[in-house]
Amino acid sequence: MTDLAWLATQRLPEVTVHASGVLAQTIRAELRQIRRFRTDVQVAICTMSRIRETVLWPEVEAALPEHGLGVEGFVVVRRGNDLVVAAEGGHGLLYGYFYLLRYFEWMSGDFTVVEQPAVPIRMLDHWDELSGAVRRGYSGGSIFFRDGAVVPELSRVRAYARLLASVGINAVALANAELPDVARLAGVFREYGIAVSLAIDFIDDPHDERVARWWSTAISRVYDVVPDLGGLLVRSARDVEGANLLARAVAPYGGTVFWRVSGADQGRDWRDRRADRARAAYDEFAPLDERFEENVVLQVRHGPLDFQVREPVAPLLGEIQETVFGIELQVTQEFSGQQRDLCYLGPWWREILQFDTTGGGGVTVADRIGAIVAVSNVGDDPNWTGHKLAQSNLYAFGRLAWDPSADPVSLLHEWAAATFAMDDRTRSELVTIMAGSWRTYERYTAPLGVGYMVTPETHYGPNVNGYEYSGRGAYHYADRYGVGADRTVKTGSGFTGQYPEPLASVYEDVYTCPDELLLFFHHVPYDHVLQSGSTVLQHIYDTHFQGYAEVEAMVARWRVIAERFEPAVRENVSTRFDVQLATAREWRDQVNTYFYRLSGVADAQGRTIHR
Amino acid sequence: MTDLAWLATQRLPEVTVHASGVLAQTIRAELRQIRRFRTDVQVAICTMSRIRETVLWPEVEAALPEHGLGVEGFVVVRRGNDLVVAAEGGHGLLYGYFYLLRYFEWMSGDFTVVEQPAVPIRMLDHWDELSGAVRRGYSGGSIFFRDGAVVPELSRVRAYARLLASVGINAVALANAELPDVARLAGVFREYGIAVSLAIDFIDDPHDERVARWWSTAISRVYDVVPDLGGLLVRSARDVEGANLLARAVAPYGGTVFWRVSGADQGRDWRDRRADRARAAYDEFAPLDERFEENVVLQVRHGPLDFQVREPVAPLLGEIQETVFGIELQVTQEFSGQQRDLCYLGPWWREILQFDTTGGGGVTVADRIGAIVAVSNVGDDPNWTGHKLAQSNLYAFGRLAWDPSADPVSLLHEWAAATFAMDDRTRSELVTIMAGSWRTYERYTAPLGVGYMVTPETHYGPNVNGYEYSGRGAYHYADRYGVGADRTVKTGSGFTGQYPEPLASVYEDVYTCPDELLLFFHHVPYDHVLQSGSTVLQHIYDTHFQGYAEVEAMVARWRVIAERFEPAVRENVSTRFDVQLATAREWRDQVNTYFYRLSGVADAQGRTIHR
Repeated sequence: MTDLAWLATQRLPEVTVHASGVLAQTIRAELRQIRRFRTDVQVAICTMSRIRETVLWPEVEAALPEHGLGVEGFVVVRRGNDLVVAAEGGHGLLYGYFYLLRYFEWMSGDFTVVEQPAVPIRMLDHWDELSGAVRRGYSGGSIFFRDGAVVPELSRVRAYARLLASVGINAVALANAELPDVARLAGVFREYGIAVSLAIDFIDDPHDERVARWWSTAISRVYDVVPDLGGLLVRSARDVEGANLLARAVAPYGGTVFWRVSGADQGRDWRDRRADRARAAYDEFAPLDERFEENVVLQVRHGPLDFQVREPVAPLLGEIQETVFGIELQVTQEFSGQQRDLCYLGPWWREILQFDTTGGGGVTVADRIGAIVAVSNVGDDPNWTGHKLAQSNLYAFGRLAWDPSADPVSLLHEWAAATFAMDDRTRSELVTIMAGSWRTYERYTAPLGVGYMVTPETHYGPNVNGYEYSGRGAYHYADRYGVGADRTVKTGSGFTGQYPEPLASVYEDVYTCPDELLLFFHHVPYDHVLQSGSTVLQHIYDTHFQGYAEVEAMVARWRVIAERFEPAVRENVSTRFDVQLATAREWRDQVNTYFYRLSGVADAQGRTIHR
Repeated sequence: MTDLAWLATQRLPEVTVHASGVLAQTIRAELRQIRRFRTDVQVAICTMSRIRETVLWPEVEAALPEHGLGVEGFVVVRRGNDLVVAAEGGHGLLYGYFYLLRYFEWMSGDFTVVEQPAVPIRMLDHWDELSGAVRRGYSGGSIFFRDGAVVPELSRVRAYARLLASVGINAVALANAELPDVARLAGVFREYGIAVSLAIDFIDDPHDERVARWWSTAISRVYDVVPDLGGLLVRSARDVEGANLLARAVAPYGGTVFWRVSGADQGRDWRDRRADRARAAYDEFAPLDERFEENVVLQVRHGPLDFQVREPVAPLLGEIQETVFGIELQVTQEFSGQQRDLCYLGPWWREILQFDTTGGGGVTVADRIGAIVAVSNVGDDPNWTGHKLAQSNLYAFGRLAWDPSADPVSLLHEWAAATFAMDDRTRSELVTIMAGSWRTYERYTAPLGVGYMVTPETHYGPNVNGYEYSGRGAYHYADRYGVGADRTVKTGSGFTGQYPEPLASVYEDVYTCPDELLLFFHHVPYDHVLQSGSTVLQHIYDTHFQGYAEVEAMVARWRVIAERFEPAVRENVSTRFDVQLATAREWRDQVNTYFYRLSGVADAQGRTIHR
């Protein structure tokens, strides 16, 4: 049986639907399968055109925003025993329906709520291959593909589309399959207001006229079958003209080209200290701003490297002015524990989305983006995400994409209450275990923003020198005197100069650079004193002892509440915690020993560091 | 067309064969396909029973060894224009035939030669899987198997058997296939006097009576079909009783059980400095001596670790008294360049085989062994071995297994002359390039016997810390003060105590331990002065600069003679040298930088070491 995730415990009273169309049908189908309960409240879901006939119209009208609700916005008004969800059309009503499902039991008294998504495109990318394998997937095989084609039975895909819609996701990108298969998948997602885009690698010469003709024909065939196709996700292309060629091909159909800013993650020489991969995205793409067609969305990774557990916000995100761009996050935990280690990423994403790209002017990343995108973490594991609690990352991603100001801990409470039937105290314990898990993960892995130090290829578990002599272009440069990558303008790779002032100066100065990013920006001696008052070396020891102790505490807390969960959940989470505890111990000991061997300086508190 | 390797240029005059049986037929078939030339010399190949009728009988009789020629020995006598090869039967005649083929054109005047193999079992192991993949193979797929069965056409297998017989190999171990397939392969090898053994993993409980019965029945079925099966190669088994159970099952048919002493290469804790994998084979197997059935051959790796480019000889090889044992080498270059880097291993093997296990009593490894075994380096690459020049390792292995006192450089000359049609000066250049390549490889890789420092899993290319924090049990323990594994009795793992005196004392004392093994046995400061007069650190720098320079010189020399080789060879060797040069540069720079970062001490000669 499919794991219902956060749609497991929710329920509603009787609801009447005054709307028509595909999404209204979906709401009606939802209402047939959702659990019900009795109440005196009369609930109606109405399109705006029909709501004028109801008693609540004056309240709805008063609540409407100046520029209108838009396609996806909705209003919820309750007065006494009358409650109405109103929207312009199906999309808004669907999101209103899920809003109601989420909050109905928490609501009391009269209220008026207006909700509109902060970011128009909220997308999940899927690196599922037609073979059924999932690149950077840690939750089993693909739910979409098997043996070179779409899976025969789409109930799992439908359940997934429902989960996504319930948290406000309106787009997915999938591998480029045969046309009838694409049409089948798009049909399922369409029922939940989700547009499918096709992920492609564009390797042709965009200056060849025949290439443009070929793509134009191919695209027209796709839109014949899937008229609401979102567009194309270009994973790699040779240059701006490649993106523009594709953009022109999809433009007549209202399609979008998502162009992934490549990571340029290979081919550097570790001997060259200026070979700084962090510079690559800005160096390559900042000059191209203005040169893209209007329906191109530049998809930029949140940090200058590759989804490390701590990076500064990529300077390109503050630089782009003319091009529509999206931020790319990773729901799949490639560098954050791969759904074996518990790592709730909500707080990290919120920090990124709320980062002030002007360093004081109040223009956040969230203010600037036209899309928010992430690689999904689902697979065909029975619980979708390998680690049952990793469902929370999918949940939080959707909710933050809709509302980047949402509080990540509140989202955890929402998610936990919707997922598990449990008392408030247990929920509170569970949230406590999960809320700080990203910070815990940061503590026991690579220190102070230096990044990497992971096992090459797999990217799970420690290997301090794993990429130190590789072509990857991200190094820690630890020697007997100190550690860190000098990315300053004055003596390093010059990366700090890609930020506007005052950010550039803040990062450039070793005394103003935030502690948690110090080794990302500076190479410092082990006895350098952080703003926290600790030396770099002692900080490394302290955080690694603390990080492991925190995992122990998480596990201990979990043992207290584990019995209150159904056996499959208990078993799943307990087993993953065993693995996390063992991995965290390796991280702690390998990182500590590595720096002890280099520095020769023992822990100030005399804890065990192996020679 | 199949690469004829060292059977490419050889030729013979007319030869008459006075013998019967399978192997005599093989000799006749050989004579039909070999290139011929005219001479006045009358050559006869005769069994001993027929030679009495010939004029050379008195010379043959006078040459016979006291204890007889044995099954595989042969005599070659030439007097004027009469030359005879004599042996008891087919095996000796076949080896005599190949001797003649190898040396005829080098011979002049009258002579008498008696040849007998020094070691009775000379075997190549093949980790080819039925799927067609070759574990630890670097020369393409399997020549035996594809898609779960034996390949349909066996001409390649026949050509391989011929190559093996020509250098004196008399046994191979192959994966355990279906019976009719085993019979087909055994039939081909039988034509060249080579016994097939089957490689198995024995995981059953040897104390269960039903297990013994099952194996007894299974073995009898195999011998029904392959009456001359060599026996079983047991890659892993639970204990001595497992080996004995199998030995009893094959004993009625004259079969042998080769029991591979496992490497115990996992499951250690890097935190525990006494967790020394080097101790494992001795600790486990020395107490078992006397407990094996007579037809068990203990197959022991030459060194205590795992085929590193430099290791001491395993103490177990000096300890075993009652059990027949064989030494295992690696023709496949797992840790010595994987047939991308040129590394002629003849000199290394000779050192091992001539090592005095008593430290002065004159009892060499070669004197003590009943078998010499190695994992083969062939695959379905057109030239068999990936790197054309790696054919020399297969050649030298066979020749040294027959005669462990053979000079490795002379073997190279033999091999080169037999492989390529070229003038003496070119051959001399080629031999010069190849002869020192093992030492060169040693210089640019892990220093002073410390081992590993390779890329995990693949085992190609440098990764100084690759296994440093693993469960592998072989560590370098480099820190800011020094490097090396302390395996002494006094302060370390106690491994030196596994050797008899005076070896134990020689290795135990940091001032008498041979330089090339210093870091295998001792942890020393970087300024420790070697017997050579250099400090450890400067030695590391010097050998790495020198090793790389030697590869450059090899490549330069090769460029001078490359044109004299046919295009396929030229292309193959030149391409591999490009790879080797790049890899050697990585080794040089990564190892030097690693130790510079740790020690902070610059190169005394001021050469470039990257920070």
